[in-house]
Amino acid sequence: MTPEFISQIQHGEPLAVARAITRVERGGDDARTLIRALFPYTGCADLVGITGAPGTGKSTLVNALAKELGAREKRVAIIAVDPSSPFTGGALLGDRFRMQDLAGTGIFIRSMASRGQLGGLAAAVSDAILVLDAANFDVVLVETVGAGQGEVDIAKHAHTTIVLEAPGFGDDIQAIKAGILEIADILVVNKADRDGANATAAALEMNLSLNPDKSAWRPPILKTIALKGEGVRELVDAIATHQKYSREKNLRAKKEAARFEDELRELLQRELLQQKLQNVAEAKWQSWIQEITARKRDLYAIADEILNS
Amino acid sequence: MTPEFISQIQHGEPLAVARAITRVERGGDDARTLIRALFPYTGCADLVGITGAPGTGKSTLVNALAKELGAREKRVAIIAVDPSSPFTGGALLGDRFRMQDLAGTGIFIRSMASRGQLGGLAAAVSDAILVLDAANFDVVLVETVGAGQGEVDIAKHAHTTIVLEAPGFGDDIQAIKAGILEIADILVVNKADRDGANATAAALEMNLSLNPDKSAWRPPILKTIALKGEGVRELVDAIATHQKYSREKNLRAKKEAARFEDELRELLQRELLQQKLQNVAEAKWQSWIQEITARKRDLYAIADEILNS
Repeated sequence: MTPEFISQIQHGEPLAVARAITRVERGGDDARTLIRALFPYTGCADLVGITGAPGTGKSTLVNALAKELGAREKRVAIIAVDPSSPFTGGALLGDRFRMQDLAGTGIFIRSMASRGQLGGLAAAVSDAILVLDAANFDVVLVETVGAGQGEVDIAKHAHTTIVLEAPGFGDDIQAIKAGILEIADILVVNKADRDGANATAAALEMNLSLNPDKSAWRPPILKTIALKGEGVRELVDAIATHQKYSREKNLRAKKEAARFEDELRELLQRELLQQKLQNVAEAKWQSWIQEITARKRDLYAIADEILNS
Repeated sequence: MTPEFISQIQHGEPLAVARAITRVERGGDDARTLIRALFPYTGCADLVGITGAPGTGKSTLVNALAKELGAREKRVAIIAVDPSSPFTGGALLGDRFRMQDLAGTGIFIRSMASRGQLGGLAAAVSDAILVLDAANFDVVLVETVGAGQGEVDIAKHAHTTIVLEAPGFGDDIQAIKAGILEIADILVVNKADRDGANATAAALEMNLSLNPDKSAWRPPILKTIALKGEGVRELVDAIATHQKYSREKNLRAKKEAARFEDELRELLQRELLQQKLQNVAEAKWQSWIQEITARKRDLYAIADEILNS
């Protein structure tokens, strides 16, 4: 890892940035060395998380958002978190459409799947964000499919979290139950020209009104038609409003502290387990698992034996 | 915890089973004692995971599946994993409709949200499955929203994993990218009377054909209309076929071993971190986090300090 490579990353040279992200995806000592070298140069980028179920038009909205931010002179990067494409492990057709859509705009886009990362997808995404932050992008948009805990963690650690819904899921209650409403700073009903858009917005409104904490930030509910670019300008304005509020109330610093706290715990857990198991023979480990599957001993009994060894 | 309580659970008495699940949800020593007492009586239930995005008609299909299994003299329990309803933390309207639908059928149903579990939702679900297994249910249906890593973990640890798709998401590629295809033992296109059902099935078929491992189980692609009960009988047959195959090829035992291995790792990580941090003062911890947010030191430097202390 030459000083030249670090300098290329800091200047945001796309190939260097892409190579750096590949390195942090692979994990291990190389990733650690790189992150440690870049870390002092991070902390400036605005981190915006966008999460929503498949079919809500997330990619289209994120692309439109990136272009609008670009039009406002922001340097924008997108991380599209995609929990492992089947078999191929790589980008599917949809990604290529997106990349073509962004060609020539200077917007950096990267898909990240869940395969082969030591420490899991969340850790790799987090390190990729640090790379983009060090590469002096003004805004990093992190797009996740949402609903699962790992993904919710990624989204909730953004400075501003946008939760996307769309009408036409047939059952609005179901769509709202996705469990990510409470982490939303901004709610968006995309595909707002479809039947049921008002019902979806009303259902979100009703759910917000259940929040007992009236002093907290109340997420605005915006309507967009991402395909036509409608409502995207208002969404960028809403992000700016939230970020201003967030800085004034010191929430940005708190969110960042919570993020690093979670990451430190995760890192410690991985390292502690590795330390503990490094002298355990594979055969011994397998014999423990066999005792459990045979119901001779339970998980807790085995765990106690390992912890006391 | 009286022997009578254990006996009531083993006889599948609904109130005792519900109380036992509440106890494992709360975690801590009580949960551990209960699981250790029940563990020897587990290992017989068939575990079927059903996962799909909101809007695919998952709940309706799971209810129909449970009724068809019930008609075949199976004792059925459902765990509906719902990553935390917003604010309320409890069951929403949709759950009550479902429960009414199942009233009088003898089918046990329980929603589990992600709030307040020590060790996370996956660990609580796993313990709840053990409770239902010890309660002599023949089949435990575990329903998850899918897409996130934690949820994928829950689904992949089932003996048979069903991945649900539905037409009409506008962008078939997107629906397939949910990243759970590769864990599917059976693929279902629900709402098969809608436009695009054949296209969705064809897209799934194409994706399956990308799998280089031709010797492996090839997931059948079934079409259902859960609301009308159409295709549900065939789905129950397909589950039986997969389970027969799975037992013959010893895959069931392998899946179970993998599940316990993951669970043991998780448990060890939690316990090791707790041991390591129990003598760290809160103020010290906060000062480390502050050093990180101020970019004075990086995560890895702090982690090394803690590990070497």
